Amino acid sequence: MQTTKKILVTGGAGYIGSHTCVELLAAGFQVVVLDNLCNSSPESLRRVAEISGQASIPFYEGDIRDPVLLDRIFKEQAIYSVIHFAGLKAVGESVEKPLEYYDNNVAGTVSLLQAMQRHGVRNIVFSSSATVYGDPHTTPIQEHFPLSATNPYGRSKLMIEEMLGDLYKADPAWKIALLRYFNPVGAHESGKIGEDPQGVPNNLMPYIARVAVGQYEYLSVFGGDYPTQDGTGVRDYIHVVDLAKGHVKALEAFLRGDVPNLLLINLGTGQGYSVLDMVKAFAEASGREVPYRIVARRAGDIACCYADPALAEQLIHWKAEKNLVEMCQDTWHWQKHNPQGYN
Amino acid sequence: MQTTKKILVTGGAGYIGSHTCVELLAAGFQVVVLDNLCNSSPESLRRVAEISGQASIPFYEGDIRDPVLLDRIFKEQAIYSVIHFAGLKAVGESVEKPLEYYDNNVAGTVSLLQAMQRHGVRNIVFSSSATVYGDPHTTPIQEHFPLSATNPYGRSKLMIEEMLGDLYKADPAWKIALLRYFNPVGAHESGKIGEDPQGVPNNLMPYIARVAVGQYEYLSVFGGDYPTQDGTGVRDYIHVVDLAKGHVKALEAFLRGDVPNLLLINLGTGQGYSVLDMVKAFAEASGREVPYRIVARRAGDIACCYADPALAEQLIHWKAEKNLVEMCQDTWHWQKHNPQGYN
Repeated sequence: MQTTKKILVTGGAGYIGSHTCVELLAAGFQVVVLDNLCNSSPESLRRVAEISGQASIPFYEGDIRDPVLLDRIFKEQAIYSVIHFAGLKAVGESVEKPLEYYDNNVAGTVSLLQAMQRHGVRNIVFSSSATVYGDPHTTPIQEHFPLSATNPYGRSKLMIEEMLGDLYKADPAWKIALLRYFNPVGAHESGKIGEDPQGVPNNLMPYIARVAVGQYEYLSVFGGDYPTQDGTGVRDYIHVVDLAKGHVKALEAFLRGDVPNLLLINLGTGQGYSVLDMVKAFAEASGREVPYRIVARRAGDIACCYADPALAEQLIHWKAEKNLVEMCQDTWHWQKHNPQGYN
Repeated sequence: MQTTKKILVTGGAGYIGSHTCVELLAAGFQVVVLDNLCNSSPESLRRVAEISGQASIPFYEGDIRDPVLLDRIFKEQAIYSVIHFAGLKAVGESVEKPLEYYDNNVAGTVSLLQAMQRHGVRNIVFSSSATVYGDPHTTPIQEHFPLSATNPYGRSKLMIEEMLGDLYKADPAWKIALLRYFNPVGAHESGKIGEDPQGVPNNLMPYIARVAVGQYEYLSVFGGDYPTQDGTGVRDYIHVVDLAKGHVKALEAFLRGDVPNLLLINLGTGQGYSVLDMVKAFAEASGREVPYRIVARRAGDIACCYADPALAEQLIHWKAEKNLVEMCQDTWHWQKHNPQGYN
């Protein structure tokens, strides 16, 4: 599909955002990034440009809660759609500082949607999460499963889904894709962009990678007595490049016009791996040891979570293509060449 | 209880807000009002002062979404607690304009709570609604019943309840009362303050009152085939002065310190009346005819909703005292003397 349509990517300097910029450019879209850099580096955009053969990526440093800046962007740029990644994402931090999460995520999204409405831009792809399924009664998880949340981060995602649903009901001309991500891992195969968490990583893969390079002594595995094949938690890890392509596919589906205007779609592989599966695969891919210790379960963690990805294939013709070995190899490649992330 | 503690009443110029100011002053509290007047008149505050024997009511005209104004108020005034009424409240409008509801109600409350946190004010009484019970599986409704919402207005109330619950979990020093109102009606017995809806009233009582004065020809009764005693919807109507006193009682309970720091309380009478009960009672109280016509049900309306008010009595020693005749007489008194509301 040939297009030069311009996409505003909020949070475009972040982990998933930067990979999505690469895939958008590869598919012929133009990108404009808005990011407040509270949890990301502008260096990622320099590298996106490098990977994509662009001189630079148009970039606005600022916040989605700033209506004046949003008005400026929508006036200066002819935006076809927004892909909305901007938001805080650490579950534990959200429990400590709930108001920051409701302000950044929920109030921020309201501010963004109001600006879009003012400027007649009514296409949005929203970065939701499998966390909205809470503790699912069964797996694989299908999109119609009941929704719930166990922490402010998850509740903020759920609230935004509800607001977007209400917006669609009020004005069915909106095209809204709610993409529920499972567990993004990996990095671009170039090794130039990847996940660069500030401080101690909250997620498994960057933590494993830091153990592999010797930055941490060992991995704490939270719980070895879950009702899973080896007692450790099972998740649906998905390569970030596959995930990024899912966003492009959602936009292309809206452009074709052969999907409902309100899309709720899981982006996962459909395959569950345990923590120990990941440790083993990463050790093999990196040729390094990944020492671990089983410790107590972490409050709020569930035993098992993986997607039924059939609807994404059916509606937006998207399917994850990269396997566990590639997820580990690409993470390792990024980590090895960027031991300090973008710094 | 003697106190001169100062209470910031957001939305204090509105219907429930103005009556609550009167009861706060009568109980020895000081009040400061913040209101953007988007749906209320400053005349109500002049009358609150008159009723209460005050020269005037300290008033800031502005919005809870304005952090600069909030900082100014909290600096200039030594606020003990906030009573938070400010918000949009029309169910039908919320379906048409969901973003306005999420902005005013949800983002507005986040802004207010963040300002309170900045200034170390951690007591809040929040104006919630029985709408958070959705369509209850049984009546009377108790506070532990499951929560749900069927429109953006209700969802905004539910989201705020959830945010306040998360805030309490993050910092249990917060004192938070979620008061779930049933159906406020009536007016101050002086006839000086009352409900003054802009445009066509959304609620039953002000509509009936306008039919009684001849402003409208007849009342449309939405549905005559509900499974209730006379086929019309049953609600728990509560006199606004009783409701206002509930807020004072919640503050007094926090001051005594003999209640949990997170209070979830129904404010209702425990008595359900049908639409036709209300029509009959109002006709008697006013000596006027109230013609009505049964028309189709309204989407989203439920058959029957009334409170179990026992918990309020147990925890904050509050109980509704005014009966249906007083509700109708006081509404009529207000309507007769103020046929154009505050204009």
